[in-house]
This record gives sequence, structure tokens and C-alpha cells, in this order.
Amino acid sequence: MFASILENVRAKRPLVHNITNYVTANDCANLLLACGASPIMADDPLEAEEVTALSQGLHLNLGTLHSQTVPAMFASGRKANALGLPIVLDPVGAGVSAFRRETVQKLLDEIRFSAIRGNFSEFKALALGSESIRGVDAAAGDRITEENLDQAISFAEAFARQKNTVAAITGAIDLVTDGTKTFRIRNGHPAMGSVTGTGCQLSALTAAFVSANPERPLEATAAAVCAMGIAGETAYRRLSSLDGNASLRAYIIDAIYRLTPEQLENEADWEIRRA
Amino acid sequence: MFASILENVRAKRPLVHNITNYVTANDCANLLLACGASPIMADDPLEAEEVTALSQGLHLNLGTLHSQTVPAMFASGRKANALGLPIVLDPVGAGVSAFRRETVQKLLDEIRFSAIRGNFSEFKALALGSESIRGVDAAAGDRITEENLDQAISFAEAFARQKNTVAAITGAIDLVTDGTKTFRIRNGHPAMGSVTGTGCQLSALTAAFVSANPERPLEATAAAVCAMGIAGETAYRRLSSLDGNASLRAYIIDAIYRLTPEQLENEADWEIRRA
Amino acid sequence: MFASILENVRAKRPLVHNITNYVTANDCANLLLACGASPIMADDPLEAEEVTALSQGLHLNLGTLHSQTVPAMFASGRKANALGLPIVLDPVGAGVSAFRRETVQKLLDEIRFSAIRGNFSEFKALALGSESIRGVDAAAGDRITEENLDQAISFAEAFARQKNTVAAITGAIDLVTDGTKTFRIRNGHPAMGSVTGTGCQLSALTAAFVSANPERPLEATAAAVCAMGIAGETAYRRLSSLDGNASLRAYIIDAIYRLTPEQLENEADWEIRRA
Repeated sequence: MFASILENVRAKRPLVHNITNYVTANDCANLLLACGASPIMADDPLEAEEVTALSQGLHLNLGTLHSQTVPAMFASGRKANALGLPIVLDPVGAGVSAFRRETVQKLLDEIRFSAIRGNFSEFKALALGSESIRGVDAAAGDRITEENLDQAISFAEAFARQKNTVAAITGAIDLVTDGTKTFRIRNGHPAMGSVTGTGCQLSALTAAFVSANPERPLEATAAAVCAMGIAGETAYRRLSSLDGNASLRAYIIDAIYRLTPEQLENEADWEIRRA
Repeated sequence: MFASILENVRAKRPLVHNITNYVTANDCANLLLACGASPIMADDPLEAEEVTALSQGLHLNLGTLHSQTVPAMFASGRKANALGLPIVLDPVGAGVSAFRRETVQKLLDEIRFSAIRGNFSEFKALALGSESIRGVDAAAGDRITEENLDQAISFAEAFARQKNTVAAITGAIDLVTDGTKTFRIRNGHPAMGSVTGTGCQLSALTAAFVSANPERPLEATAAAVCAMGIAGETAYRRLSSLDGNASLRAYIIDAIYRLTPEQLENEADWEIRRA
Repeated sequence: MFASILENVRAKRPLVHNITNYVTANDCANLLLACGASPIMADDPLEAEEVTALSQGLHLNLGTLHSQTVPAMFASGRKANALGLPIVLDPVGAGVSAFRRETVQKLLDEIRFSAIRGNFSEFKALALGSESIRGVDAAAGDRITEENLDQAISFAEAFARQKNTVAAITGAIDLVTDGTKTFRIRNGHPAMGSVTGTGCQLSALTAAFVSANPERPLEATAAAVCAMGIAGETAYRRLSSLDGNASLRAYIIDAIYRLTPEQLENEADWEIRRA
């Protein structure tokens, strides 16, 4: 199922408009090129809407959120909705400040997202307005484990139904759901947490996958989550005794570049549960 | 001919002031250090002019253009012109929005550039105000091939004469011309297109080469284009079966770091045509 | 002595808030993760103070200084002072413009820093308001050598006492002093100067080390300087004949990732001098 999703990305080479943070923008651009998509970063309100209109999909990312950029997010989001283009939201650190909480709530109110990708703490901030105590990483009590899996799935499904979106809650176990069908995904490696921006990169990848497969947002998002996890596994296996997180960072992007549809199909580790 | 141009960069270590985008700024800085130059990035209008005055050259790059930064570009551009310092313009995505089209036209009206480096789509946008349909990459119909080479040369030469600059139109075949003498350059590798910012890096490199060789802007620009192409070839040969575009990105900068004047002289693949 | 300082970083995983430049932000984030800390970048005045309050330490960096960001630096700095959180200042290019000179003087007037990390030119600009002639790198006459070492130590000690801070002046020889006790450190490799942002990374590392060891700012800063130098030595030894500054960049971060408390203890090369 996932092979054809990656084949579509490679064949259609979607142009993905990113309004994102300056910390991981370079990695997002190279990850998009690695998967076969084409990136453009543009966040000035004077041009955001026009750039979205040239694109096949939009990725909004709240890292290093700037008040000057927020109007660009709304302009591009509305334009993408009007044109029927997929939008993926990454609510980076959604709970760390009133500014982010208010911005993300307003985005959820005014824009329809094809998919939202974040960690459990970020999703809780979206749903409950709760504050994070751990910056941009998931708080310790917000890790999805075998113990709280059923509860997390119920939460994710309710969120997805309420917001009419695909919710991708990533962590040790990843959940991707549209509210009626839920993928539990077990790809990935804990060492990915030592590389900044693997979450941002996954959100950009999701935007590319959904942009090239707009009629299958749930499967495209699940495929992107599996692809990123497989890349993390591949990259980790490649580490030498001298390599650390900087080499891992490059190897993850390299692994997406080398990922074949067959490898994605064969190594994706997922189960489906229907609500 | 090109050996002495690189030798001058290594000997003079020009300080290059970059007003550029946040996606590829780190790569531009490391590429400048790799070639022997010294980078400084500063884009606030409060200090841009002063920073230019400390520098030996200026690189203006339109990627992630911000309205707050535009006045800095004009202040630095005017200062560099007044001081006789070389300026290189990279009109990234010049056609993607009215904001970029208007900014770049105003820059062309008010600032004299030693060299302009872009793809064919970007140059067409400069010349004709045409809109791109492919973001920051050249549109499919805008690739320079053997078939449209003569037409592209005529266009480049007319542009260079009209703007009193060196035009460097890069693609599968690269053209560098001052309007009377034209280099056709065949270095490089298609895989460079899978690394974000190789164009930005080439523009930064051009700024370094021209800054260290201000009396020879045409040859310095052609040498920079050859150097970047040779680096791409060297980097591509180095790829293992696990390496992808992230490793290629590092290998290109490494190759510039290791590039000797002799290698540049010997591997540069160019022909001259006089108008 | 230094082993326990690194052990504390790994055990406490301090969240470090960075208000920094877009050129090296990714490297600072990965370096913080490499040492065991957790990074957050946030520079909008609307949220800076709240993000600081969630953190265990603050890193202010003047590279690519923006007028929009300056109020965030003051708000976060005051908040950190009020909460007793360590703050590390990196006065990148402090002398290059009136804007930076005035901002940094105002910061020194209103904020108490646990440590300030810069090159000799930058410290002279802090102390004397002198102008740099070499951008963000130390001017040639501002290198610390055996010849001017005593003079540099006297300068550093007077500065540290006057500002009630730890001064870390880095170069071929590094000086770390609180005004009464001075570390002379000889780790590091000249090739580190060919990688952009090794100074920024060291400042971020210092923020992590001091945040996890707030009662020992002098020793924590000296340990960070030694750790970064050892990482540079380790990375340099790893270079192949094809590797250049881009590979060196990754190897430095990798080396911090792999650095053990024992290695830091054994390879740190320092002497103490008491004033």
C-alpha cells in the first residue's frame, strides 16, 4: 500500500511551501529533496499567499514563531484551503507560551488541516490548552508506551474526529488516525531524539506525501511516519564508533534519499485498529 | 588562468558581507570559509551599511526575502557601489511573487552589480517580469540544453550589456558573460540539484572570487562557476552506496576546501565565444 | 574535577533557551543535544520571557542581531536574573556596528551574566568600545599568543572583576577567569576556525555546563572550553584526505556526543594562575 504513495511523490515531485523555523529549515529542505519533492521557504506576508498558490501543498511549523510571520501563516492557510491544497501543521512547542497557544488555537479555528503532526505534549496543548514543562520535547509523563496506549488512541481518535483531520502523534510508538481508522507504528529509533528537527522533517515529509496523494491523507501520513522511522533505523545501523548525532542527522536524510518503494513496503511496521 | 584567481582568494581572505536567506546561510558561511574567504551575515538596516563598509564584497540573496531586510539590501548596495566594492546578486525565485519581482527590479534600477548568478527562469523574470511556475528551481522549459544554447547565449549577452554586469546563468550548461565574451561551462553534476542551496553557495563563492579579483569580474565569476562544478563532480564520485544528498552536501563543501589552484586550472571545462 | 561537571549535564539534561543567530542555530541545537542538554530557540518578544521561565539557563548570542529580537534579549535576561538562572553571553562581532556596540553595552549595564564567551577583539569592543576591522573573527593583532599572554590575562581578570562575571576569551590559547582564578587552556585545533559557528557552539555548551552546575560557573565554563577543544582535536584526527571543513563540522558535534567524563578529565589541558 505504501509503495505507491512514495512512487507518487517521486513521479509528481510536489512543490511544498514551508513556513517554518530557522533552526531546521535547511534539514527540511534537504529532506524534501531527498524524498523527491521540491521545497520553497517563504514567510513574508507580502508574498506568502502567492507562493502557496504556486505550490501543491503547505507545511506550517510553529518553531521560532515570529509575530511578523503569523499573518503569513493565516494568508497561506486560507489560500490553501480555498484551492483545496493539503496543509500539514507542526505545532512545535505548542504549550510553551501564551503566544503559541493562542496562535495555534486560532489556526485550528480558521484553517482546515489535512494532517497535524506533533508529540503527545503538543497535542495535549492543542486539545486542552495545557502547558508544557519540557520545551519542544514531550514531557516525561507524555510518552506513549504500551501502558497508556489505549488511552492515547482514544484521545487521538477523538481529536481527529473533532478537528476533521489526520492526527499523527509521534513518540516511541506512533499513532496516525483519522478518527475511524488508526495506525499504530513501531518504526524508528530512540537515537533520533538526539538530532534536532527530526520532528520538523517528518512534518515536511508528511506534507510532501499528502501533496502527492491528496485523496489518501491517512495512508500518506502513515507512510511518511513509517518512512521517517525506517530512515532512523537505517541511519542508526550505519553509525560507526566515532559517529554521533551530527552524522546521524546526515544519515537519516541520506536514508530517505535511498529509500525505495519496496523497502518502505517491506520495512513499515504497523497495525491497524478500527474504532 | 583560473589558478591565480583562487590563489588570490586564499591570499587575500576577503571578508564577504552576506544578506541572505536563513535556509542556506550556514552552508554559505562554510563554503566561504572553505574557499579561503571570511563570511559575515548581517541584515538589520541598523547596521547593514556599516558592515558592508568593513567588507571587501557583498552578496545579496533573495531567498526567504523579508520586508524588514529589503532596506538593508539597498543601504548595503548603495554603500558598496559608493566604495567601489563588488556586489553579487542571487535573485532566488525572482518570479514567484510581486514582492520579489518588484524588489529585484528596484535593485537592478538602483544598484550596479558586478555579477548576477541565477537559473534561466530567474533571469527571464529579471528581464521580462515573467512568472515562474516552479518555485526556486528552473522551470522545465527553462533548462539550457544544446538545442536552445544559441538562443540562451544571445539572451545572456544582451542582458549583461544592458545591465552592465556579468551574467551567470547556471544549469546543465552554464553561461557566464559580460556581453562581449561568453564562457560556456560544462562542469557540475545533476545530483547537485538534490542539495538545497548549491546555487546560493555558488553566489557566495562568486562574491568571494570577485572580491579578491575585482579587476577581473568576468574571469572570477567563470572560475567560481567552474570551481563549484568541479566540487560537485568530486563530491559525486565520493558517494558510497549509502550516501545521499545530505552527504553530498558536506562533500561539496569539503571539495571546495580541498580544491587546489592546479585542480581548478586542469579540471575547469570551458570554451569561450566572442559576440 | 571536570568529569563531574559533564556528568551533571548528562544527568540533569538542562533545558537551555537560546536567543541566537540563524546562521548557526542548527549547530547550536545539535551541540546541546550532543552534550546531553535540551535546546529551545525562541526570540519573539511575545514569548521570550515565558520560555526563559521554563528553562534552566539562557544563551544570548549577537550574531545576525535584529532590532525585533533585542527586546526579547532584555526580557529574557531580566527574567533569568530574577529567577537566578545562569545566562551566557556571546557578543558576536561586538565591534562591527554602533547597533551591536550599543546593544551589548546596554546588556552589560542591565543584565548580570554568569559567563561571557568571545574572542579577544570582541572583548576589547566590550571593554573599550573599540571597532573591529575583521568582522566576526578576531583581528590579527588580537590573537592571544605566548608573547601577549600576561597582558591578556590582566585584561581578562580586570574585566571579570568589573562585570562580576566569568570571562572566557578564546583563541589559540583560551583564558577563563572570574577575576581571581584564571584557567589557561591549550586544547583545540586551528582548523576549528574553518568551521562557522564553533564559537557560538561553545557558548551554547557553556550555557549547558553552567546551567547544570550553577554553583561552579568558573569551573563549568573552563570545562566547556576544554570539552570543545578536545572535540576539535578528536574531530581533526578523524579527517580523511577527502574531508574538509564540512566534515570537520559534523565530527566536532559527534565528538561532543561521544565525549565521556573520563576523556574530558584526562585530555583537558589547563593550568591555573591565581591573581
